[in-house]
Amino acid sequence: MKQNRKLTIAFQGEPGAFSEAAAFKLLGPQIKPIPCKDFEDLFRLVTQRKVDRAIIPIENSLVGSIHRNYDLLLQHDLPIVGECYLRIVHNLIGLPGAKVGKIKRVLSHQVALGQCLHFFKENSQLEAIPAFDTAGSVKMIMNSGDPTQAAIASAGAAKTYGGKILAPGIEDNKTNTTRFLLISHPRSIVALKKKTSFKTSLVFRLKNHPGSLFRALAVFALRDIDLKKIESRPIPGTPWEYLFYVDIGGQIGEPSIDRSIHKAIEHLSEFAESIRVLGSYPVGKL
Amino acid sequence: MKQNRKLTIAFQGEPGAFSEAAAFKLLGPQIKPIPCKDFEDLFRLVTQRKVDRAIIPIENSLVGSIHRNYDLLLQHDLPIVGECYLRIVHNLIGLPGAKVGKIKRVLSHQVALGQCLHFFKENSQLEAIPAFDTAGSVKMIMNSGDPTQAAIASAGAAKTYGGKILAPGIEDNKTNTTRFLLISHPRSIVALKKKTSFKTSLVFRLKNHPGSLFRALAVFALRDIDLKKIESRPIPGTPWEYLFYVDIGGQIGEPSIDRSIHKAIEHLSEFAESIRVLGSYPVGKL
Repeated sequence: MKQNRKLTIAFQGEPGAFSEAAAFKLLGPQIKPIPCKDFEDLFRLVTQRKVDRAIIPIENSLVGSIHRNYDLLLQHDLPIVGECYLRIVHNLIGLPGAKVGKIKRVLSHQVALGQCLHFFKENSQLEAIPAFDTAGSVKMIMNSGDPTQAAIASAGAAKTYGGKILAPGIEDNKTNTTRFLLISHPRSIVALKKKTSFKTSLVFRLKNHPGSLFRALAVFALRDIDLKKIESRPIPGTPWEYLFYVDIGGQIGEPSIDRSIHKAIEHLSEFAESIRVLGSYPVGKL
Repeated sequence: MKQNRKLTIAFQGEPGAFSEAAAFKLLGPQIKPIPCKDFEDLFRLVTQRKVDRAIIPIENSLVGSIHRNYDLLLQHDLPIVGECYLRIVHNLIGLPGAKVGKIKRVLSHQVALGQCLHFFKENSQLEAIPAFDTAGSVKMIMNSGDPTQAAIASAGAAKTYGGKILAPGIEDNKTNTTRFLLISHPRSIVALKKKTSFKTSLVFRLKNHPGSLFRALAVFALRDIDLKKIESRPIPGTPWEYLFYVDIGGQIGEPSIDRSIHKAIEHLSEFAESIRVLGSYPVGKL
């Protein structure tokens, strides 16, 4: 009965946002993306099972980890079921008849404007105007009908609103990449393919003693479990405790699948103040 | 001769920015803050010894590490000589005669707007307008003379431009804290007090083998050196290599001062692909 229904995927932002592009990259064209105003809304939609999945950015190669989304993952019980790396390509987008030389004002999200500084230095007549959204700024300039206004956004945003790409790939850093996570309601998880490489994300809390993290990492190293990411996050107000975000290679779940990860987490729980497994999911391609 | 001259401290942003407040907190009122347009300018001023020091934000408790400033630290040879933690308190600031109930538009940096969502939900008549700068948005609304416009910024920005704090402390998270680093030209370093607690910041690169980070941390753990921060950063385009940002307790420099740190870094250099010591500096208070 459900087979003909498209999978609904909530994302933050306007249609044409990078998050929407990540959802298509990860899940293919047969999905129905659902735009959301903010990340709280998005987590609520998944919790209430009003959408099948949601996609959230979790770290960018230039901007770093998005702690706010880690906080939301910890506040909700919505497992990570997938990840996707998306190259962030910024384009100057104008009205169909527009020309770069005639553009005066360029709207975009502040982070996007800050990632195209060389372009603004080479085109010093352009005035950068901060806006809430990359895709939303394309929508705004298209609605304005003003050929002297342009926006910076993804190629998908140009397509969504019928804008013209006046200058492609204007981002300063050609390795600019964002990692997205796909989250699901725990009761909506589908069976995972066994042959895939998996990653498992954990958050744990340790008292800050010299050597405490070394001991925590020993539970993985002594079992030859590969560490893909580690990040300490001081807990404001509690200077002697730290949160650690860790991604390891392998899958937790059925103990028979990967007994060593199961054992490592059991071992870590002997001395960590708390542990949360955020999910096991197939490794995304860079 | 130089004793009567105030120490010049470059910071990014407009007068009244949080970075300026951090410089005053760290160094006292007897300094001369120098506003800079962007971080490149700020590093250039220090390199050319046109200012004595510069202050840069390096991580925020909600937003995470600022990789861009780590990149600039790696690109320049300007040691870290101090750190400072600043609580980020956002205030609604209007013209002297303004009243909260009459405000329609609120300007600020997008990150600041995003950190006051509860305030906007409680005051749904307010329209949030993104701007480049927190302090700069106070300057803008003061110049406009429009009592229906307000800005979100620090108390220092209100004071700098003669604005009135209409609603203090409107940030969602009351532990919102930014860590700033003070950098100096290597030839301008002053003698360090010996009795202070020190921290040393390192960046090193490792090949991604299972257990490679564990081995790297062993050089510190086996010498009882405390780990204050650790963060892995994938190097885009080279999926098998990682950068690690690490802060450890103690001071490198004169080997006699802290021989164990000296030895640990020597040990790490036996297998790390590269190591950079970014500086040793007195620990900032939270």
